[in-house]
Amino acid sequence: MVCMPTQFDPPSGTRDFLAAEFEHRERAFAVIRSVFARYGFEPLQTPAFERLEVLLGKYGDEGDKLIFKILRRGEHEASGEADLALRYDMTVPLARVAAAYGSQLPVPYKRYAMGPVWRADRPGKGRYREFTQCDVDTLGSASPLADAEVLCAVHDVLTELGIGAFTIQLNSRRVLAGLLEAFGVPADLGPGVLITLDKLDKLAPGEVIAELAGRGLSEATAAELTDVVGAPDSAGRVRDALKGSELGQAGLDEVSGVLDAAGPLLSGRIGFSPRLVRGLSYYTGPIWEVTADGVPGSLAGGGRYDHLISELGGPDVPATGGSLGIERILLMLPAAQAAGRGRIDVAVTRLGDDLAAQSFALAAAARQAGLRASVYLGGSGKLARQLKWASEQGARQVLIFGHKEAAAASVTARDMDSGEQTTVPVPGLAGYLAGVAARPGGDGRP
Amino acid sequence: MVCMPTQFDPPSGTRDFLAAEFEHRERAFAVIRSVFARYGFEPLQTPAFERLEVLLGKYGDEGDKLIFKILRRGEHEASGEADLALRYDMTVPLARVAAAYGSQLPVPYKRYAMGPVWRADRPGKGRYREFTQCDVDTLGSASPLADAEVLCAVHDVLTELGIGAFTIQLNSRRVLAGLLEAFGVPADLGPGVLITLDKLDKLAPGEVIAELAGRGLSEATAAELTDVVGAPDSAGRVRDALKGSELGQAGLDEVSGVLDAAGPLLSGRIGFSPRLVRGLSYYTGPIWEVTADGVPGSLAGGGRYDHLISELGGPDVPATGGSLGIERILLMLPAAQAAGRGRIDVAVTRLGDDLAAQSFALAAAARQAGLRASVYLGGSGKLARQLKWASEQGARQVLIFGHKEAAAASVTARDMDSGEQTTVPVPGLAGYLAGVAARPGGDGRP
Repeated sequence: MVCMPTQFDPPSGTRDFLAAEFEHRERAFAVIRSVFARYGFEPLQTPAFERLEVLLGKYGDEGDKLIFKILRRGEHEASGEADLALRYDMTVPLARVAAAYGSQLPVPYKRYAMGPVWRADRPGKGRYREFTQCDVDTLGSASPLADAEVLCAVHDVLTELGIGAFTIQLNSRRVLAGLLEAFGVPADLGPGVLITLDKLDKLAPGEVIAELAGRGLSEATAAELTDVVGAPDSAGRVRDALKGSELGQAGLDEVSGVLDAAGPLLSGRIGFSPRLVRGLSYYTGPIWEVTADGVPGSLAGGGRYDHLISELGGPDVPATGGSLGIERILLMLPAAQAAGRGRIDVAVTRLGDDLAAQSFALAAAARQAGLRASVYLGGSGKLARQLKWASEQGARQVLIFGHKEAAAASVTARDMDSGEQTTVPVPGLAGYLAGVAARPGGDGRP
Repeated sequence: MVCMPTQFDPPSGTRDFLAAEFEHRERAFAVIRSVFARYGFEPLQTPAFERLEVLLGKYGDEGDKLIFKILRRGEHEASGEADLALRYDMTVPLARVAAAYGSQLPVPYKRYAMGPVWRADRPGKGRYREFTQCDVDTLGSASPLADAEVLCAVHDVLTELGIGAFTIQLNSRRVLAGLLEAFGVPADLGPGVLITLDKLDKLAPGEVIAELAGRGLSEATAAELTDVVGAPDSAGRVRDALKGSELGQAGLDEVSGVLDAAGPLLSGRIGFSPRLVRGLSYYTGPIWEVTADGVPGSLAGGGRYDHLISELGGPDVPATGGSLGIERILLMLPAAQAAGRGRIDVAVTRLGDDLAAQSFALAAAARQAGLRASVYLGGSGKLARQLKWASEQGARQVLIFGHKEAAAASVTARDMDSGEQTTVPVPGLAGYLAGVAARPGGDGRP
């Protein structure tokens, strides 16, 4: 169906979630919450907006432009000044919470946060201005085991969601720093060189070498670096190249620390990937990214960021964590089953205004059995019309209760799949409904 | 604990929800969702913000002032103009959704919406600028049974949440209109007269009469009206007074329609209360309010508003619904058990870097059994320090795994309540953990 935008559409870049889509999303969210809880990660929910000064300057100039700012209220409105801003990510609020509640928080503080964030990006296919972000982080542990634990939790989330084949690339910022050191790359060229090396999956080696040379590396260094990092057995080549670098050795050690602890649990899905860079400059230790075959971009990513929390205004604690690309992951799950499950399990007729109380009682009995039930609320007293409504609702059973049934103290139960009708004496109704609830599709769960 | 506000507090009128409080709220929300689902109400989630023009002018001048407006982004930012605004309630978005998806929605469209709304009110005790609102509404049914169904659902929510004694007052706007007609109150005085009658619970009859007279009613009419509506048996007196009013009879009929259908299911908690007015001018039929002894204000309220959806820009459909005062209800529930349940069920020691993989595997086994488990991530290799951490986490069991255990292919399981330690051979661990999960407090649920 092609829909033209109308004045009734939600604002550009946002979405309305009707029942099927909402439940599709909630099912995934429930899996995520349950996995994180099993790992001892606690939920944290912060307000939708923060004071503007808490957010400004934390995301670079480009990020600042994408922050939704909220006008001051009251007499100050006319000034056009903003004093609040919508949450842009989950990390800055985490830093504020760590500063505000420091001593009340457990050590380490393991938390996850899942909810909407807002960015004034140009909306596009799969890019929204309101979207769900899901972060999982551990503050207060410097151990690579904290990194390993986050990875195991992310792995379990993806597995329990039913994401098939995915792989986890693991590297360390210290490995990258060691490489730059080992190849004598001047410090000021380092960040640019890493950005180019990150393109080894997309560009031909010659193009990477040319770009590195363009950044100021000698042709020889550019070629050597590309050869080592781009090699099919780059893990071994990099290990060799880092033999003389203390920094590099520290990086290799933390990669081993993560692999040793988490590797056996990750179904062979994780590997040392020295060319993984990850764009963000704040990472200080292990970094990782989850990708799936045939899916562009990453499903999740993260790493250690030992100084970021204090730079964002929080306490100076070691920290590591990751982010699930929820919107992308949701697209990979079996589609929301709009027509699959009915809106209700049991529909109850209303065949006389004097029978309303009994119809209500029948619906209540069905609910007591754990079934979703609804009484016909339309204006027609005709059974055929009411059965049509029951069918539109996807009801599995219709409880028909007219004057004939009232006189006989029974209910006519119609199976909507087979069309079969059964006369159920009122005293036997609870048992009958329990039977309906026990049959497949009758879990009554929302 | 008295806390002074700091720069790290959330913005005025908003709250951070740490784990215990978050879970306290989520437990209540889960009950609400499950009851509404059993009634066949569907979830609906709309964006946090709407286009400004969708909201402006819908809440009166006072309401407009409380809308949080969002600055235009990009080159227009400097203009200080707003083009978006944070959701102020759930009703205007419902009207927009009804307009946007009309033919895709079931008839009647029964939906609930639960989530934050934002109002730039002066923050105060129990009054927030970000708070959760929960609405349940039926669009497209003119039957009093739709009103009755909403009431039954609200009743079930409160009962399942464990709210003890509450009562539901029921009236109809048509009853009130009939009364004004029967007592010859001029149309232009009607709204003011109703506002004064609404004070009969707080003011002495004499004061109400004086206020009515001040509004322009004759002393005699004011006294008579107050006598009938304020009488202990007002229900009967009002029925008598409405004998000659067609409008009043229609009102009494719809009150009876609701009472007949829902009354038997509402445990005697509902009654006809002719002095209930409810402030909002848009109600057109049955109105109701839920109160609890000793709790100021109402726990829930609602009514029929047959023209509002079209006035708000939606289609012209009959509508009825209600709103749960979630924040107030949450305060009535047993307090969030901060210290009650531990953060994790099972703590796993780490007594050697070479044992990390085994410690991780032990935690994974506990999670497999449905338990929440965490490996020690701190820097100390000392058992005493790690047991202290386990105790701070509220763990019920600690799995101790050092070189002694590794050599014996066993685990030392310590019960944190009794201090008893058991040696569990590794092959028997899954069975042992299943036993822990089966014991009280070991449901492993988040």
